[in-house]
Amino acid sequence: MKITPVKGTNDYLPREAALRDYLKKTILDIYTENGFEHIYTPAIEDAENLDKSDGGENLSLIFNILKRGDKLDKVIEEGLTDANVKDLYDLGLRYDLTLPLTRYFANNKAKLILPAKFIQIDRVYRAERPQKGRLREFIQCDIDIIGSDSNTAEVELILTTAKALTAIGLKDFRVRLNDRRLLHAVLLDTGFEKNDLESVCITFDKMDKVGIEGVCAELEEKGLSANVIAAFKDLISGGELTLDYIKSKLTDKTPAEDLERVMADVAELSGGSVKTEFDLSLVRGQGYYTGTVFEVVSDEFSGSVAGGGRYDRLIGKFLNEDIPAVGFSIGFERIFAILTEGEIKLPAGRKRIAVLYNEEDFRAAVKKADELRREGNNACLYSRPKKTGKFIDNLEKYGYDGFVIVGESDEVKMFES
Amino acid sequence: MKITPVKGTNDYLPREAALRDYLKKTILDIYTENGFEHIYTPAIEDAENLDKSDGGENLSLIFNILKRGDKLDKVIEEGLTDANVKDLYDLGLRYDLTLPLTRYFANNKAKLILPAKFIQIDRVYRAERPQKGRLREFIQCDIDIIGSDSNTAEVELILTTAKALTAIGLKDFRVRLNDRRLLHAVLLDTGFEKNDLESVCITFDKMDKVGIEGVCAELEEKGLSANVIAAFKDLISGGELTLDYIKSKLTDKTPAEDLERVMADVAELSGGSVKTEFDLSLVRGQGYYTGTVFEVVSDEFSGSVAGGGRYDRLIGKFLNEDIPAVGFSIGFERIFAILTEGEIKLPAGRKRIAVLYNEEDFRAAVKKADELRREGNNACLYSRPKKTGKFIDNLEKYGYDGFVIVGESDEVKMFES
Repeated sequence: MKITPVKGTNDYLPREAALRDYLKKTILDIYTENGFEHIYTPAIEDAENLDKSDGGENLSLIFNILKRGDKLDKVIEEGLTDANVKDLYDLGLRYDLTLPLTRYFANNKAKLILPAKFIQIDRVYRAERPQKGRLREFIQCDIDIIGSDSNTAEVELILTTAKALTAIGLKDFRVRLNDRRLLHAVLLDTGFEKNDLESVCITFDKMDKVGIEGVCAELEEKGLSANVIAAFKDLISGGELTLDYIKSKLTDKTPAEDLERVMADVAELSGGSVKTEFDLSLVRGQGYYTGTVFEVVSDEFSGSVAGGGRYDRLIGKFLNEDIPAVGFSIGFERIFAILTEGEIKLPAGRKRIAVLYNEEDFRAAVKKADELRREGNNACLYSRPKKTGKFIDNLEKYGYDGFVIVGESDEVKMFES
Repeated sequence: MKITPVKGTNDYLPREAALRDYLKKTILDIYTENGFEHIYTPAIEDAENLDKSDGGENLSLIFNILKRGDKLDKVIEEGLTDANVKDLYDLGLRYDLTLPLTRYFANNKAKLILPAKFIQIDRVYRAERPQKGRLREFIQCDIDIIGSDSNTAEVELILTTAKALTAIGLKDFRVRLNDRRLLHAVLLDTGFEKNDLESVCITFDKMDKVGIEGVCAELEEKGLSANVIAAFKDLISGGELTLDYIKSKLTDKTPAEDLERVMADVAELSGGSVKTEFDLSLVRGQGYYTGTVFEVVSDEFSGSVAGGGRYDRLIGKFLNEDIPAVGFSIGFERIFAILTEGEIKLPAGRKRIAVLYNEEDFRAAVKKADELRREGNNACLYSRPKKTGKFIDNLEKYGYDGFVIVGESDEVKMFES
């Protein structure tokens, strides 16, 4: 039998599991305090729901679950071909928490108070090629507000996420914001065709990495009008891409004013501690975003540690009406990696004491351990091995704070930290 | 799209999720305090590991995960038949936490201190027929001690599990115990063949339900010797099936003495609060148990709320040596059902206050909510709807403890409970 976990999944050692639990609890507590409610959805979903969802490239990364019994026999009988591969599976593992959430909302709408504010901290699965070093089983950590079209929802999400990141120990982060409607308006005003907008956005998202020249080169490669690209380059190069500058170029100023209000509210309500910045080139990958998009970055770490946006048309797939929705997701595995690398110190928890005993002292040892527990420690019993000295060294390396040998001394000896 | 969750899985509403979180946290805290360590293993496992495991009838309930890309194409090309169905899948969802734990131990042995004491509280999956009303995704809640052949491990597991059940609010439960070696010895002494023991045990497990006559009838149906069945009936009917009585009938008294010691230790160390009782007919389903088996029952609830036993030969499947191991599992979903039925009152948590505001008062509302949070409440913001009175009634029904209308009054009005 194979002793390693499936590629792209992890066994977590006690120390790692404790860190993951600490992260989950800290984030969950902050979210809950701020009026969001924890819910659970199943990790397995109906295959058709997954296949028909707005998952973009994630749709090719779904783990499908084989049919069972008569249903599988039927496929074998009919003969398997490229055309009926879909007949082999009826379920799949979710690739994110947003699809299950929208289904959940549609299923439980009558039992909720609107707008509903949800927390999900749970596992998702993607069949990434293991070579890429990406996880195939990982935790996402989302808050969503469903049923509000007011930008106050964005303000709540940003303030709450910032509180959670601060509680974890992150410092000097800032929130980058954009609105897809605003970006679309800029692009339409410049002369791009409506049908080309998504494609142009995907290219423009690379502005950070390749600069305006690189972006224009890729747009040319995509066969877009040279005149329009030139006009776009003029606009982008004509000044700093501040919200004021972009706003001045637009006919419909509503999305820009909405963003201004969000940024002003966040500044005022955080007492200036949460920094925001407008970034016209921020797109975020998901196809389902319809308005604001945002992410959290920090000079201390590469990439973003949180991201989200408004998706006002996703829930309509399950209901007969569009329901406005907006969500923000903390990159749990990214944060876990940062913490594991030891860049952030965790607050001290309960002391861990090892209680060693000779077999004949077992009852006395249990009583001693219970006494230590009542005093607020975690106490673990160990039958004393022959090489006691070496064992005690190992206890210290393993992370114990101290030990006591029952029958020898009643005193707990603490390791020097 | 389908709005209901996959059959046999559940969406959990905020109130249910809060109860599940409370249960998990309470159990996890008790386990941790008592020296056990939380670990995580992946929910997806190698298909061969699952297929070759000692899962008994659970092996027919595995959700298998379809291969992807070239590997799947190869099966299509070769043509699917009854004979190569296994070629379709390379992964599966775990059906319990014991198989992943044994694999985990084999994989991480060098990084652990022995005996290792593990906590797992996590999801498992079984492809039960939905008609049975059984869950296909559910939580198991296990503690295991790996690397100790001393019965003190059983004592620790029983005391710790009893503490967790007490912390949850369960009362008047008792621990039933048996040892498979003891039962096997009784059956061999009576005259049953070694090869028939497992089958006889399965029948004898029904003693509670069908009585000695029912057991003997089934043994006859199974074609076992009438003389031996008669001798067995004599033995069983010859007196109360106390440990003393059974011990008096046995040649090798070791397993009986071990059980006596476990029961005496539990009585002494719990100050008499944890009741134990010997039950010769207790077998527990899993094929991998090799020694003690135990479960927790209560007159207040039908069935058992926890169960476990010793499995000294399971880990050897991954290593070249047998490693003794023993585990105890709390029936999380059973406890959740009991609590949901409201038979147990939960301790009061943080108060939940709704903060209502008119759009122009949003900033004042956030400030008021933050003030309430600093005072130890959970505060949720709601833009005030037109029908405020009806909305407030709904807040009360939904479980809020009070509300405040910002701009109207600074005072929080608490609902009468």
